[in-house]
Amino acid sequence: MKGFGVHTSLWSIDWTRDAAEYAIAEAQKHPIDFIEIALLDPPSVDAPHTAALLDKAEMTAVCSLGLPEEAWPSRDPEAGIAYLKMALDKTAECGAIAFTGVTFGGIGERTGHPPTEAEQDDVARALKVAADYAKSKGLAFGIEAVNRYENHILNTGWQTRDMIEKVGSDNLFAHLDTYHMNIEEKGLANGILDCREHLRYIHLSESDRGVPGAGTIGWNEVFAALAAIGYKGGMAMESFINLPPRIGSALSVWRPVADSAEQVMAEGLPFLRNMAHQYRLI
Amino acid sequence: MKGFGVHTSLWSIDWTRDAAEYAIAEAQKHPIDFIEIALLDPPSVDAPHTAALLDKAEMTAVCSLGLPEEAWPSRDPEAGIAYLKMALDKTAECGAIAFTGVTFGGIGERTGHPPTEAEQDDVARALKVAADYAKSKGLAFGIEAVNRYENHILNTGWQTRDMIEKVGSDNLFAHLDTYHMNIEEKGLANGILDCREHLRYIHLSESDRGVPGAGTIGWNEVFAALAAIGYKGGMAMESFINLPPRIGSALSVWRPVADSAEQVMAEGLPFLRNMAHQYRLI
Amino acid sequence: MKGFGVHTSLWSIDWTRDAAEYAIAEAQKHPIDFIEIALLDPPSVDAPHTAALLDKAEMTAVCSLGLPEEAWPSRDPEAGIAYLKMALDKTAECGAIAFTGVTFGGIGERTGHPPTEAEQDDVARALKVAADYAKSKGLAFGIEAVNRYENHILNTGWQTRDMIEKVGSDNLFAHLDTYHMNIEEKGLANGILDCREHLRYIHLSESDRGVPGAGTIGWNEVFAALAAIGYKGGMAMESFINLPPRIGSALSVWRPVADSAEQVMAEGLPFLRNMAHQYRLI
Amino acid sequence: MKGFGVHTSLWSIDWTRDAAEYAIAEAQKHPIDFIEIALLDPPSVDAPHTAALLDKAEMTAVCSLGLPEEAWPSRDPEAGIAYLKMALDKTAECGAIAFTGVTFGGIGERTGHPPTEAEQDDVARALKVAADYAKSKGLAFGIEAVNRYENHILNTGWQTRDMIEKVGSDNLFAHLDTYHMNIEEKGLANGILDCREHLRYIHLSESDRGVPGAGTIGWNEVFAALAAIGYKGGMAMESFINLPPRIGSALSVWRPVADSAEQVMAEGLPFLRNMAHQYRLI
Repeated sequence: MKGFGVHTSLWSIDWTRDAAEYAIAEAQKHPIDFIEIALLDPPSVDAPHTAALLDKAEMTAVCSLGLPEEAWPSRDPEAGIAYLKMALDKTAECGAIAFTGVTFGGIGERTGHPPTEAEQDDVARALKVAADYAKSKGLAFGIEAVNRYENHILNTGWQTRDMIEKVGSDNLFAHLDTYHMNIEEKGLANGILDCREHLRYIHLSESDRGVPGAGTIGWNEVFAALAAIGYKGGMAMESFINLPPRIGSALSVWRPVADSAEQVMAEGLPFLRNMAHQYRLI
Repeated sequence: MKGFGVHTSLWSIDWTRDAAEYAIAEAQKHPIDFIEIALLDPPSVDAPHTAALLDKAEMTAVCSLGLPEEAWPSRDPEAGIAYLKMALDKTAECGAIAFTGVTFGGIGERTGHPPTEAEQDDVARALKVAADYAKSKGLAFGIEAVNRYENHILNTGWQTRDMIEKVGSDNLFAHLDTYHMNIEEKGLANGILDCREHLRYIHLSESDRGVPGAGTIGWNEVFAALAAIGYKGGMAMESFINLPPRIGSALSVWRPVADSAEQVMAEGLPFLRNMAHQYRLI
Repeated sequence: MKGFGVHTSLWSIDWTRDAAEYAIAEAQKHPIDFIEIALLDPPSVDAPHTAALLDKAEMTAVCSLGLPEEAWPSRDPEAGIAYLKMALDKTAECGAIAFTGVTFGGIGERTGHPPTEAEQDDVARALKVAADYAKSKGLAFGIEAVNRYENHILNTGWQTRDMIEKVGSDNLFAHLDTYHMNIEEKGLANGILDCREHLRYIHLSESDRGVPGAGTIGWNEVFAALAAIGYKGGMAMESFINLPPRIGSALSVWRPVADSAEQVMAEGLPFLRNMAHQYRLI
Repeated sequence: MKGFGVHTSLWSIDWTRDAAEYAIAEAQKHPIDFIEIALLDPPSVDAPHTAALLDKAEMTAVCSLGLPEEAWPSRDPEAGIAYLKMALDKTAECGAIAFTGVTFGGIGERTGHPPTEAEQDDVARALKVAADYAKSKGLAFGIEAVNRYENHILNTGWQTRDMIEKVGSDNLFAHLDTYHMNIEEKGLANGILDCREHLRYIHLSESDRGVPGAGTIGWNEVFAALAAIGYKGGMAMESFINLPPRIGSALSVWRPVADSAEQVMAEGLPFLRNMAHQYRLI
């Protein structure tokens, strides 16, 4: 991944044939280098159709997900591995170049306790198998730290780095998200500094998941730290403004956080691009 | 409430006789004007003992809580009212001057949907009865907006103001918390500006609930906005660094966010006081 | 003054007939409510020509200047008054609604010592006469605090407020500038809070006088403070990117601080407007 | 240089025998690793006396200055070289380990024009000779970028780096100052990123030269960038609160920017140390 991308949830949270056509057409209207496709239900995706659309549009893609409860590796590593392999197959079929997200567990996975060593071992084992499988398909494999309410296994940059080093697969990368970092890191730069060369993907998401630039994120510090580590990975704008209840519930967005997708693209994307340019990242 | 206070969870999350003695003794060592006592289990508090300690220490107190599930007004307003009256009795017995927190529902209360009008009506009805009861005991009554993961009814300053105006009791006040504002507000000042004269209490809490000054909160904007509205209410430093599992789970703190209570008092309190002085609030 | 304006130095530092035609035509291409015209040499301005252009364009204008050394009121109040009256005549003839800037002295005026009481008295006396003269012509009269290197009389918001209260003319107003505030104020909001109702004009200028949004100004704090005081005055974007040596020397801009006027309008103006909208100022 | 230091102007701007005794005694009361001694008039310094005091206190020192007008290399490189050699002799005699500041010109040096190639060549030539002379004495030699009003030759990090590379002496290093960076850099981190491995000394100075933490500097971005480049150089707190007119004039401080040296040490130093710790620099 490199350059600027957009998470397609901005246009559609599902990824039906219609949604794919609409989202890719919208993406092409803007100066973006790649899209991120959320695989909420991998089996239902018409992968050859997506692959053809991406190919025609000359658009790069990344696929992402959070695992369903029955496939959380902390509870059932084998089920996790099976699910991840299925999703990696779909990712490869779509023609995407990477697979990432809460690939180590679920959005909403919390035991009420800190992660145990056994949980971390199970997660690491599942990730090892899945990352190797991804590698055999030419895919990079990311793990995204999310905030304390969405998952209890990986919340910070240093935990993500430690897990990557524990697993030891060279196609495994750290995926950070400014929305989560704003809650979890002791200074926005610290997560970036902890991951450094492991960091290959970042979600540029505002503090309320609305319009980038119109929240509390200290963007100067984020971009300065990315510039300082010589960041070359992908920067994906993410905003959740239009979610069906089954997704809104996990992400806990109870009110509109932006007026429209148009506002996010018209205000948020130039804001982020200008600041990336200010710090000479683009 | 006025001046600087500290949430006693820094010293003890429970409020036994021993805890009360320890916390009040610790509080007296520092330049603080009041303490906040969490009533996790109101019936178990020895109120006359606390009242005597506070009196002897010449220390002002505020009591706070979140309601247990069986007393969430959005589900059972009458049960909510009964619980609130019991807790208000205890608050008055302790000699505290105000009662606040997630007094309108629970920490962890989420339906998976935005708050409905019926839920808001039930909450308003319970708050009206409870606020009037509080008034009869000479207590101010606060409602604290918390983030989307902890509750779905009140997340922002404007929702808090709207609820206060809907209820219409003059002893009802807005209680904000910088930790939650950092996630929910479109700019830290906006929550403060939305509440203005309704705002009489604020938790000064860092973005990770650790040491104030060592996180992502834009403190300059917070204090500038407080100064600009002529804020005269209480400012309570809050940090959750040492929680038992039953509390840690609701607040989702899975790792230590500070070295010790001593660090919070030695680094966080001077940081906040200096900045309040910089903006001429103290 | 109200709404968003642009300092015409962006298009031309001089105000010849050609410059006036060009600048007003450029201004009309953008969503701006007024322009600020620098009167570097008031006698040379063809005021009826400007008045006709403004009238035709339905554009509001503010005139501004810094006094030449021979007319610094701290040295020669009578010469200062004479110059100010001449410039106010020209301002009125242009059809502008206000006169402001370093109207109390010079850009580059420094004695090497703090301002003396005698200097302040002389300045106040000249301002009183000039403000009354302005009032007779229906003009508001502003004084702009600038940084320590550009002038030693008024550097901060509180000094500006004190001077306004010392003079006591009701058409006299405070004019702040974020570029100077970034150097002089103890927190960007403090200058705004010190001036409050006296503040009717503000220059929105980046820390290096380049593209707003691409510097070190803490814009969230600026807009939050403006929102908090209920600011209703004019907000003028100012950027000095293209100055002839005689002006560049006083302002000490030794290198290009933006690529072009187009960049400032395309990146800086939307940045400022979006943030003003975020804090509900527009 | 490494660790935290303090510019001795906090205690005395002159460096008489009495001043040296007082300043070194004060410095020892605090957790600091080195002091910076301003050589306002090098010949007048009793170097053996200072050397003995430093030795006894086991305190490391850095000497700094700005050149007097007759020794500005842009006007008279030979005079500049002679002055620099004299000051380097004194620096070595004091037992200091480095020599830095506006060593390439004067505080207040401005021609009214951007630096010419001839000026830059003359400066580079003088720096080359002086840096080699410093090396022969075992001294590192720094050049400090200052703001546009104080000098027209070097205002930014990239200009400083370019000059260092033009000169080509390996004991020549970049010296930045947050006070100047706040005015000149397009984002506080950019100056640091431009200098990277050339950066071996930084003045931590607030936006108004008062108490660090109580101004407009975006300290998180500064420390994050230092952490990101793996900074190992010295960090010197600088505050100018008590200046005689001959110095105050060049620095243009017309009012007290802090209550006292005690306030700077009691509030500013802990603020900076805590933040350096937050970003794991100490």
